[in-house]
Amino acid sequence: MNFRAESLRKHAEWKGKIEVVPRVEVDSREKLSLAYTPGVAEPCMAIHEDVDKSFELTRRWNTVPVITDGTAVLGLGDIGPEAGMPVMEGKCALFKAFGDVDAYPLCIHSKDTDEIIRAIELFAGSFGGINLEDISAPRCFEIERRLKEDLDIPVFHDDQHGTAIVTAAALLNALKLAGKKIEEIRVVVNGAGAAGIAISKFLMAFGVQDMTVCDRAGILGEGDTQFNPAQQELAKITNRRKLTGTLADAMKGADVLVGVSGPNCITKDMVRSMAEKPILFTCANPVPEIPPQDAKEAGAYIVGTGSSEYPNQINNVLVFPGLFRGALDVRATTVNAEMMMAASRGIAACVTEDELRPDYILPYAYDMRAHESVAAAVRKAAIETGVAQKTIDQEEEQ
Amino acid sequence: MNFRAESLRKHAEWKGKIEVVPRVEVDSREKLSLAYTPGVAEPCMAIHEDVDKSFELTRRWNTVPVITDGTAVLGLGDIGPEAGMPVMEGKCALFKAFGDVDAYPLCIHSKDTDEIIRAIELFAGSFGGINLEDISAPRCFEIERRLKEDLDIPVFHDDQHGTAIVTAAALLNALKLAGKKIEEIRVVVNGAGAAGIAISKFLMAFGVQDMTVCDRAGILGEGDTQFNPAQQELAKITNRRKLTGTLADAMKGADVLVGVSGPNCITKDMVRSMAEKPILFTCANPVPEIPPQDAKEAGAYIVGTGSSEYPNQINNVLVFPGLFRGALDVRATTVNAEMMMAASRGIAACVTEDELRPDYILPYAYDMRAHESVAAAVRKAAIETGVAQKTIDQEEEQ
Repeated sequence: MNFRAESLRKHAEWKGKIEVVPRVEVDSREKLSLAYTPGVAEPCMAIHEDVDKSFELTRRWNTVPVITDGTAVLGLGDIGPEAGMPVMEGKCALFKAFGDVDAYPLCIHSKDTDEIIRAIELFAGSFGGINLEDISAPRCFEIERRLKEDLDIPVFHDDQHGTAIVTAAALLNALKLAGKKIEEIRVVVNGAGAAGIAISKFLMAFGVQDMTVCDRAGILGEGDTQFNPAQQELAKITNRRKLTGTLADAMKGADVLVGVSGPNCITKDMVRSMAEKPILFTCANPVPEIPPQDAKEAGAYIVGTGSSEYPNQINNVLVFPGLFRGALDVRATTVNAEMMMAASRGIAACVTEDELRPDYILPYAYDMRAHESVAAAVRKAAIETGVAQKTIDQEEEQ
Repeated sequence: MNFRAESLRKHAEWKGKIEVVPRVEVDSREKLSLAYTPGVAEPCMAIHEDVDKSFELTRRWNTVPVITDGTAVLGLGDIGPEAGMPVMEGKCALFKAFGDVDAYPLCIHSKDTDEIIRAIELFAGSFGGINLEDISAPRCFEIERRLKEDLDIPVFHDDQHGTAIVTAAALLNALKLAGKKIEEIRVVVNGAGAAGIAISKFLMAFGVQDMTVCDRAGILGEGDTQFNPAQQELAKITNRRKLTGTLADAMKGADVLVGVSGPNCITKDMVRSMAEKPILFTCANPVPEIPPQDAKEAGAYIVGTGSSEYPNQINNVLVFPGLFRGALDVRATTVNAEMMMAASRGIAACVTEDELRPDYILPYAYDMRAHESVAAAVRKAAIETGVAQKTIDQEEEQ
C-alpha cells in the first residue's frame, strides 16, 4: 500500500481523527440543572475554595494538550503550526486508545521561546500534564526546562524523552540476546539533535560508559566550537576515548549504533567494522540510515528501525500513552529520570525471555499489555521518588 | 431537589463532563501507518502547501475552545480560572449535544487584556472559532473587539451576545402575544454590565426606539461621568426622553423590562406602574429581580427568567450550539449582526403561532429543532452577508 497517498485520502474522509464528547446527559431540564446552571455553581465554588479540587471535579486530572509550534514535524522540518496538526491529532487518538488519556491538539503561532513558554503557562490550569511535540532544537530544551521549573504538573517533550525511553527499552532486550553488559559496550549515536542528545544522556543514565556522538560535522569532541551549546555540553560527558573523525571512525569496534539522523548514511563496510553481534537501531524516518537487509547482510545481529515496515519498530507510541497514564493516575508533579527509566524497563519486560528473538525485541505498539506495563512502572517510580500527590489502591496494581 | 448539593456530588462522580475520543482505529500496524506515521506526513505537507486545508484534513473545521479567565463566572464573580472550568466543561458538553460542535474548555491565568488577546491569537490556528466566556466587563469588550479584528474565524462572547440573542427571541414572541410593535414599545434594561449593554444595543438593532438603561446608580444619562466608558457610550444612543432617577422612574409606563442585575430589586408597585400587558424578563441568576408569582400578581402579562424552575427560561443554551454549528458549516470568517439577528428569529420561529402562550414563548433548551433552526438561519445569513467561505448543498437546507 502507498501509505502516504492512502493516508491523505483517509484524512479527507475522516475530517479529523478525534472529537470531544459529553460524559453526561443533558436531555432534560433536571439533567441540565445538574451539569450546567444552576447546579454547576457548587463545584465552581468548591474549586474556588481549594484549587486542588480542579483535579476531582473537572476532567483536568486526565487531560494533556499535545502542543507544537510546527518547527520540527516528523522528518519534514519547519512546516508551520497548522501543518503539524495531523500528527498532533494522531497522537491524541493514540493517547486515548492506548492510555485512556484525554489529549487535545494545540498548535502555537510563535517561534519565540519566551512567548511559547508564557502562553503554555497561561493555559496550564486547564490541564493535568503537558506534552510538547515536534519543537525544534535547541529551543525545545529551554522550553521544556523552564516549563518543568515553573509548573507543578508533568511536562514531557516526547521527541526527546519518548524516543530515548523506547530506544533504551530496545537496547535492554537486545543486550540480553547478545549476552553483553550495558556497562561494557561501546555505543555510537548518530544525529545530535533533540532526540540524539536525549538518547545519549539517557543511555548513559542506564549505565553506558563508552558513548560517542556524531553529527553531520563528525564526532562531537570537547571544546569544538563548530557544535551548538547543547552539543558542546554533551561533548563534555561523552567520547571518553577522545575520538576524532567521521561516523565511520566512531563505528569501528562499536557494539551499538543508534541512528536518529538521515537516510542511507551508513554503509555495509561501516557495519562490518563494528564489534561482534552488532546492534543497529537505524531510526531515520521514513528511510533508515541503512536498509535493514543490507545491515543484516553485513553481519548485523539485531536491527531496529523507526518504521512499521520492518521488524523491531522503535516507536515512541510505546511510551507516551502509558507514561502519562501512570503520571496522571498518581498526580505526579513532574516526570523525573526514575519514572522514565521505569518506563523503559516496563516496555522491555513485556517481551518475555521465551519470546525474545533478534527480530522481536519490543512489543507491538498496539499491544495493550505494553501500555499497562509502562503505566504501572511509572506510577510505582513516581510514588517511590516522592513526586506522587496521590497514592493508588495497592490492590489495583496486583 | 437541592440542585447545588446534588450537582457537587455528581461532579465528583463524573470526574469531568467531557472526554476526547478517537474517530479512527489504531489497533493494527496498517491502521497506525495511515492515522499516524508514516502516512500522516502527506496531510501535513498538504496543509503546509495550503493552510486552508487545515479545515479539511484535521478537526479544525468543527472545533471551538470555550475560554475564560474566571473573572465573571455565573453570578459568582471573580472566582479564578480553574474554578470556572465546571461551567466551561458544561458548555462543551452542550456544544456537542445540541450542535455537534467539538468544544474544548480552556482557562487562562491572566487578567491582562493584551496578554489574554495574544495568548488566544497564538493558539487560534488550532480552532475553527473562538467562544469567550465569563470574562468581566469592561475588559471583555476590548478582548472580543480586537480578536474579531485580528482573526479570520468567528469570535463570540457568549455572555454578551448569546444573552442578547435569546432575549430578542423571547421579545419577538412576547410582542406577538401582546399585540405590540417593536418600534413603538418602551424598553427598560436593568443592569449595564456586559450582558445588559449587549442586550440594549441588540434590541435597538431589532427596532426598539425607546430604550432606557439603568445600573446601580440609576438611569444612564449622556455625559454622566459616574458611569464607565462603555456605559457612557451606551448613554449616547439610549434614553431619548432624557429621563433621570432610579429604576422605578424608568419603569413607569414601560412595556418591557429586561433585568440582568440582581435579586429582588423590582417591587410589585414597579410592575403596576408599567404599561398595559407588561413583559418582564427577570434574568438574574439564581434569584430573579422579582419572584415570577409576585410579578404575575402585580399584572405582568408575560414573565421570563434565567432559571429552569419557572416557565419561559431565557437561556443562551438556545443560542451558542446552533450559532457555531451554522458559522462552522459555512466557514464564516466572523459572527456579524445579521447572523445574530437571524439566530434570534430562528429561535422565535420554533414556537408556532398555535403553540404560543404567555407561559411558552421559547422552545426548551433541549429541543433539537431549535438548535437546527438557529444553525440554518445563521448559515443563510452568513452566506447572504458574504462572510461564508463555503457554500452548502442547498438541498440540505430544505
